[in-house]
Amino acid sequence: MEKTITVLPGDGIGPEVTEAAVKVLQTIAKRYNHIFNLQYALIGGAAIDACENPLPEETVELCTQSDAVLLGAVGGPKWDQNPSHLRPEKGLLAIRKQLGLFANIRPIKAIPALLDASPLKKEIAQEVDLVIVRELTGGLYFAEPRKKTNDYALDSLVYTREEIERIVDTAFLLARSRRGKLASVDKANVLDTSKLWRQIVEEKKVGYPDVEVEHMLVDSTAMKLITKPSAFDVIVTENMFGDILSDEASVITGSLGMLPSSSTRGDGFGLYEPIHGSAPDIAGKNIANPAAAILSVAMMLRDAFQMETEASAIEGAVFSVLNDGHFTSDLQTKGKPALSTTEWTAKVLEELD
Amino acid sequence: MEKTITVLPGDGIGPEVTEAAVKVLQTIAKRYNHIFNLQYALIGGAAIDACENPLPEETVELCTQSDAVLLGAVGGPKWDQNPSHLRPEKGLLAIRKQLGLFANIRPIKAIPALLDASPLKKEIAQEVDLVIVRELTGGLYFAEPRKKTNDYALDSLVYTREEIERIVDTAFLLARSRRGKLASVDKANVLDTSKLWRQIVEEKKVGYPDVEVEHMLVDSTAMKLITKPSAFDVIVTENMFGDILSDEASVITGSLGMLPSSSTRGDGFGLYEPIHGSAPDIAGKNIANPAAAILSVAMMLRDAFQMETEASAIEGAVFSVLNDGHFTSDLQTKGKPALSTTEWTAKVLEELD
Ligand SMILES: CC(C)[C@H](C(=O)O)[C@@H](O)C(=O)O
Ligand SMILES: CC(C)[C@H](C(=O)O)[C@@H](O)C(=O)O
Repeated sequence: MEKTITVLPGDGIGPEVTEAAVKVLQTIAKRYNHIFNLQYALIGGAAIDACENPLPEETVELCTQSDAVLLGAVGGPKWDQNPSHLRPEKGLLAIRKQLGLFANIRPIKAIPALLDASPLKKEIAQEVDLVIVRELTGGLYFAEPRKKTNDYALDSLVYTREEIERIVDTAFLLARSRRGKLASVDKANVLDTSKLWRQIVEEKKVGYPDVEVEHMLVDSTAMKLITKPSAFDVIVTENMFGDILSDEASVITGSLGMLPSSSTRGDGFGLYEPIHGSAPDIAGKNIANPAAAILSVAMMLRDAFQMETEASAIEGAVFSVLNDGHFTSDLQTKGKPALSTTEWTAKVLEELD
Repeated sequence: MEKTITVLPGDGIGPEVTEAAVKVLQTIAKRYNHIFNLQYALIGGAAIDACENPLPEETVELCTQSDAVLLGAVGGPKWDQNPSHLRPEKGLLAIRKQLGLFANIRPIKAIPALLDASPLKKEIAQEVDLVIVRELTGGLYFAEPRKKTNDYALDSLVYTREEIERIVDTAFLLARSRRGKLASVDKANVLDTSKLWRQIVEEKKVGYPDVEVEHMLVDSTAMKLITKPSAFDVIVTENMFGDILSDEASVITGSLGMLPSSSTRGDGFGLYEPIHGSAPDIAGKNIANPAAAILSVAMMLRDAFQMETEASAIEGAVFSVLNDGHFTSDLQTKGKPALSTTEWTAKVLEELD
């Protein structure tokens, strides 16, 4: 197959981890006879530095013309004092909105070799295998009106039926392809948007009789993600709750540096990126963990290109390197020296060859 | 001293645990020569059943005429299908608003005897000693306009300078009386209300040079509460973020059944209540853990009545009963049989006598 992929390395460790991920892509291309045309573009701080715009037009155009996007990470202290339209995160928010990427998908699964790094007791963390489906282009993040004076500020939390229906359908379909359990998270005892959300989930569930749905309040969910995370299969929620809960969930298994994500829109196109940030403190030192970026490539191959074999090969390689006891410094416990980003990537490439 | 306390037992296990707390109050009155005039009133489901109103006028009036309020818990499946103005939670939201209780204070401290019940690894949970200061009468919970049709819903997130200033001052003062560290939590990279919040914290910090302030994003905070909760001293945040983060924080030490809280307004008056809910499944069985309600009484004596000795006596009694290995069924691990609510309370009363 021939596919065009736009690569947005971004800031901090973004370029290092995307370089590792690109090497994996190239190895897969050779081994499985695919052609991946890579086109690089700017986003975030890198784009601000180059052209005073966290999301240049040209970047959006290249993404639009491609089959998938691979993103590293954006942000860093260099731009922290900038006015808000010149902040790296604006690039991230804008690309989601402009490409219509309404569904953020974050799988979180315990990795036996890494359980020592989990803050949770082993017996609680070990069975975790869940996916958070976060609505990504609505709610408090984008709604109007918003306003700020010196004495008053307003943000609007708006959801339309259409916005809720498409994300809820995405989650039901995903739950059906997994263990058939869906937790819909809202704050229906307080918010009108949550009441509409809950109503639509109730309507939709009739069409998915094979999926068992539970409504949960966001505050109880924040507790249960810690006390009994293995009880979850698929979680669906609105943008702001999803931001908080998905970050909370990302640390429970101790493998934050391992977690991929996708932002999609229901037509196969998607943006794939590690969950971790740009980690400016370790940028340029060749010590970042490239696993999340590499696993984001696996997610891209499976979900955007239906390359199941290739995706599994990458995941298998990553887990086998970990099982052999090779870790980057973030996961290092004791004994063996940590591998650098390029050394660890080389191990994965060897496995794939 | 003579004090008038309005007791709102509420629903589920509310009546049982407040009964235990009231016994403690009576024992303290006798031992330290105080007069506590107790007046009982209705709230939540109990009030809906009695007079079709989750917060009767009379209840508000009694509260207003008293020096402090002791609340059990509200809610239960019996009222879950009611229209929203006849839901028990409405009583809770209304009493906060009508009494002007803008500051919800939730101390969370690891209890050595209970660390086995924590979902976190012992070395992470054991040093936890933090307080969450949640804004309680503003933001998404109360702002207008709000709207819901079949196809669209809107909630408004509004904060005024005055609302932010008073809660931020409360938190600075509390931090000053503790370890001098304040984490102000917002989502200033996205929300205008958070930008105003952050600006006001920056202005206020000049007046508290002895307090070290850090701004944190709500998503990172949700992670750090799990990975390094001992790093926090005082956390201050807006209403909805506070709802989520305080529930998350309440489970990290394994002692949810032990946690008191207060909702105050800066003039010494406050409503004191356990953090746990009404637990309808175990209501009426005399097995609920009354510790959180009893510790809420301690918090009331200390914060509302400046009875430091009395408050410490209660806390000492509770911890000594726990250290002696007496637990209610929620905390029972193995071996010894669990004590009932009244048996466990009797142990505490013995210690106090
Ligand atoms: C950088 C920020 C605007 C963004 C968000 O809140 O969506 C990030 O936290 C994320 O979750 O991707
Ligand atoms: C019952 C509900 C409305 C309430 C809230 O969200 O404030 C509760 O969760 C709490 O935290 O006291």
